[in-house]
Amino acid sequence: VHRPEATGANGAARDHLVSWLTHEGFALRVDAVGNVFGLLDLAGGDAPLILTGSHIDSQPDGGRLDGTYGVVSAVLAAIGLRAEARAGRMRPRCNIGVVAWTNEEGARFQPSLLGSSVYAGAVAADWALDRRDGGGVSLGEALATIGYRGTDTAPAHPAAYVELHVECGPVLEAAGRRLGIFDRWWGCRKIELLLEGEAAHTGPTPMAQRRDALLAASRIIVGLREMADAAAKDALHTSVGRLELWPNSPNVVPARVRLFIELRSPEAAELMRAEAALQALIARTAADRITAIVVRDEYRRPGRFTPALQALAETVARGLGEASLRLDTVAAHDALSLARLCPSIVVATPSCGGLCHTPLERTEPADLELGLDLLTGMLRALLTADALPDREGQCHANSGAVA
Amino acid sequence: VHRPEATGANGAARDHLVSWLTHEGFALRVDAVGNVFGLLDLAGGDAPLILTGSHIDSQPDGGRLDGTYGVVSAVLAAIGLRAEARAGRMRPRCNIGVVAWTNEEGARFQPSLLGSSVYAGAVAADWALDRRDGGGVSLGEALATIGYRGTDTAPAHPAAYVELHVECGPVLEAAGRRLGIFDRWWGCRKIELLLEGEAAHTGPTPMAQRRDALLAASRIIVGLREMADAAAKDALHTSVGRLELWPNSPNVVPARVRLFIELRSPEAAELMRAEAALQALIARTAADRITAIVVRDEYRRPGRFTPALQALAETVARGLGEASLRLDTVAAHDALSLARLCPSIVVATPSCGGLCHTPLERTEPADLELGLDLLTGMLRALLTADALPDREGQCHANSGAVA
Repeated sequence: VHRPEATGANGAARDHLVSWLTHEGFALRVDAVGNVFGLLDLAGGDAPLILTGSHIDSQPDGGRLDGTYGVVSAVLAAIGLRAEARAGRMRPRCNIGVVAWTNEEGARFQPSLLGSSVYAGAVAADWALDRRDGGGVSLGEALATIGYRGTDTAPAHPAAYVELHVECGPVLEAAGRRLGIFDRWWGCRKIELLLEGEAAHTGPTPMAQRRDALLAASRIIVGLREMADAAAKDALHTSVGRLELWPNSPNVVPARVRLFIELRSPEAAELMRAEAALQALIARTAADRITAIVVRDEYRRPGRFTPALQALAETVARGLGEASLRLDTVAAHDALSLARLCPSIVVATPSCGGLCHTPLERTEPADLELGLDLLTGMLRALLTADALPDREGQCHANSGAVA
Repeated sequence: VHRPEATGANGAARDHLVSWLTHEGFALRVDAVGNVFGLLDLAGGDAPLILTGSHIDSQPDGGRLDGTYGVVSAVLAAIGLRAEARAGRMRPRCNIGVVAWTNEEGARFQPSLLGSSVYAGAVAADWALDRRDGGGVSLGEALATIGYRGTDTAPAHPAAYVELHVECGPVLEAAGRRLGIFDRWWGCRKIELLLEGEAAHTGPTPMAQRRDALLAASRIIVGLREMADAAAKDALHTSVGRLELWPNSPNVVPARVRLFIELRSPEAAELMRAEAALQALIARTAADRITAIVVRDEYRRPGRFTPALQALAETVARGLGEASLRLDTVAAHDALSLARLCPSIVVATPSCGGLCHTPLERTEPADLELGLDLLTGMLRALLTADALPDREGQCHANSGAVA
């Protein structure tokens, strides 16, 4: 699957989703940043909204499940629950909406979680639309090209958000569990660092005279790995996933390199230590006569999904005959953006071999079905609850009209 | 100047050169690999040919002088010498030809010196035309696009080849000399190395489980620099000028990296030591669970330009009132290809600050003119010589008819 945000392949997947939603009678809304909502009125226009979904953009040469599993499951669950309501087997007090968020991956445009961040009011829509890919194309232009720079108003904030996702890690498989409930999310520091040296001929230029930006970048990459290896187990993940080089010619000393650095930890204090160590690595580039400029610096605080939703997931899983496992999510999910607005959670099925962001990404079909059952059960409970949880995990009265 | 081989800008420069040559009455030939020859008959069709020239392709964002200076000077020198002959101030025994060789730089297509290597019989034209750029376009296709996949026969091998070039290094400037005569050329090993790891999410994937091709590449880049630093002064230059990464996304562990490695030395034995040290670095990537594949491995033996042409250059420089300096060339030049065929040499003017392969490339205008005078003087001597030097530096009778 090669479906980075607002590419032709992404547009085709969006078209497919929209035609499915329309065919199934969902009310469709595409907002200014291309988030696609499909709404089912189960309890009247004034009733609270329970929102579920994920994303359908992918990494370059990514996997079939990351994101798409959550969107497809959301649509199937909503259709199933509507059928239950129509058949009189359940009485919803809330409406249900499904959503495919724009640019969750942060592969083509940075930062990640962009569509859900706009929805949550964390960033402005205009700012998001002006993010540019490596070729200088803005998200706004790219969305317009595929016909998804929408004009609809996004639905009002939901009463709860539930996202189903593959784990994207090896913990469930190693523990022999089929259902995961995310408790903490790791914090993250994403730094875009520009190193500037000087172009020169790789032949005659004396070694001592070179100002090689790639050499400086390589020392940082090796240093970042050493930082992670020196930290306690599962305390710190570091990476450089992307490099841009100029002029990137075999016989020119690299003049400029842009590094995309990530530091991740469940502990804010560990992230601060890592940040200080990175600054020391950056300071050392001066010895190679390289100028270092931090072009972008994003910080995501570590946090915790709504405890009441964790408890609900555990109960529903038990009802399915499965012992679930609480675990951390290191990868970010749109549910982090939604946690600013409402009770929010991600539940997960195993990733075979822990693989993610690769065509090898896979989950057993039976586990995929089990995940859909968990999502459906949670949504059913939320749609019919007397009281909905609040963000802190306490309960408040459900103000929704009875359908 | 951004004029990599067979780009639109390169085509425009070729058109300009061809229209100048045609306007000045040169007989034009464009051979199968796009080498452009302009020939002046000064001594009758059977007379030997003295060839001079360089290249007009450039690095990405390269300089104005590298190559182009030698081609423009060659045309000016040939025009001037024809005028002298017409005015009866000299009696040429040879004809003169100017040439702009295809893909000297090796920036867009590898290897470098491609056009002159075909002319010298070192590689086949079909093989050269099938070299592909980073986007998969072949040299043959690219030349056809700009209209320079020629059908003319290249001229018969010359009796001597003289190339004027900027030094592309700091030696002349540091020594306070305005004219350089290249004696030795450095040998070179160019290796294209493919490192294969595995794509994975940069977030949840445990550090110990990652197979990060960029980390392995970084260790090699740092190791290569340490090799050069550990060698004797001016004994070894190492570099990685270009990297290609997949998928090159901020939050995917790099699965594959292609490195363009160069090892350069004036001594064959030093190159062999460096090659062995590089193999040890490559072997160490196994510790990062990376597979390493050498995709391309080119070797250029160190060598020496024709002593008799060095002596001629020194004499002509002295006549211009300048003490010249013998020096090495670390950069390759088309004269290396020609040295297989005939007496061959490169003479040089200073590069300000030693800079080359950058828009900052510069030579004092007075030095550019002095270089043209040196080239003209050498060509005049060769055109009128009773005997031409042979490749080993001895002389043989000039078989050319008297004009």
